[in-house]
Amino acid sequence: MTAASPLATADSVIDADADVEALKTPFVQTLIRVIRAHDAHGAWDNKNDQMLLRAFIVTKEQRKQIPILGDPDPRTLLRLDQFYAAVGLAIENRTGLIAQPLIKLSHEGWGRVVLIAGKLVVVSKSLRDVHRFGFLTLAKLAEEGAKLVEQGVASVDSYPEAARA
Amino acid sequence: MTAASPLATADSVIDADADVEALKTPFVQTLIRVIRAHDAHGAWDNKNDQMLLRAFIVTKEQRKQIPILGDPDPRTLLRLDQFYAAVGLAIENRTGLIAQPLIKLSHEGWGRVVLIAGKLVVVSKSLRDVHRFGFLTLAKLAEEGAKLVEQGVASVDSYPEAARA
Repeated sequence: MTAASPLATADSVIDADADVEALKTPFVQTLIRVIRAHDAHGAWDNKNDQMLLRAFIVTKEQRKQIPILGDPDPRTLLRLDQFYAAVGLAIENRTGLIAQPLIKLSHEGWGRVVLIAGKLVVVSKSLRDVHRFGFLTLAKLAEEGAKLVEQGVASVDSYPEAARA
Repeated sequence: MTAASPLATADSVIDADADVEALKTPFVQTLIRVIRAHDAHGAWDNKNDQMLLRAFIVTKEQRKQIPILGDPDPRTLLRLDQFYAAVGLAIENRTGLIAQPLIKLSHEGWGRVVLIAGKLVVVSKSLRDVHRFGFLTLAKLAEEGAKLVEQGVASVDSYPEAARA
């Protein structure tokens, strides 16, 4: 386990073989595309994929150091947006239906995210400790993303008419 | 047309026969129940229904005086919450299904509200100029509320399985 700080080396997102595999998964590749899409000015052209993902990885030690008072950091909120945008895009890639995220946060870092396709809520999830949004490892990130995408696809399959409404 | 200020007399919500009728409608009665439910300490026990509704009525003159810079007034946001809570409750009264509002606002007073029953989005509406949320007359308020309730009920009727999921 690395005790990676935000200034750790770029390849700290790869701690195990599982992380190498995670980097290749459709969900993580979609997330990378979402992140790069925010880079309108090409500032990250020289950053490799692992560098872009690094801030999504939050170790237990790092979690403890992040205060949960006040509003979450705007960069954390951007990553939350990017993660669920990637879930939505990956659902669209699988179903052909746009799945739009709607994230509602309270000021205390609690909230709810829903992804909506047509008139169907394809994913619904409570959020908490948004200040500390992140994943222990890249493999965990890939797993959580893929799980939400599967939920979304299953919802569309179950209620296709509402999803196409 | 009254140029009612927030300190105008209580019965300024009743300008016409249409307002008298509006006060009796199921939606407006539901809204009054929602407002009173927020009054945990009985501070409004001596206020009649019209007094509770008055802040929802915003004349054209008042609209112009409300700045749309910065975040909307917390009392305006509370009224927005109460209005859509009443829409949800009125849908529940008609369909037996809880319809939960989810309001997402940007900092510029734009946003979106959805009401969700089960996995179904029964109402979806863009919001703008939230700083100036309100209705020209009580009749207009009743009309808009009833329209949203009808939309919600129609959605449940169209996609009952997703709504009951």
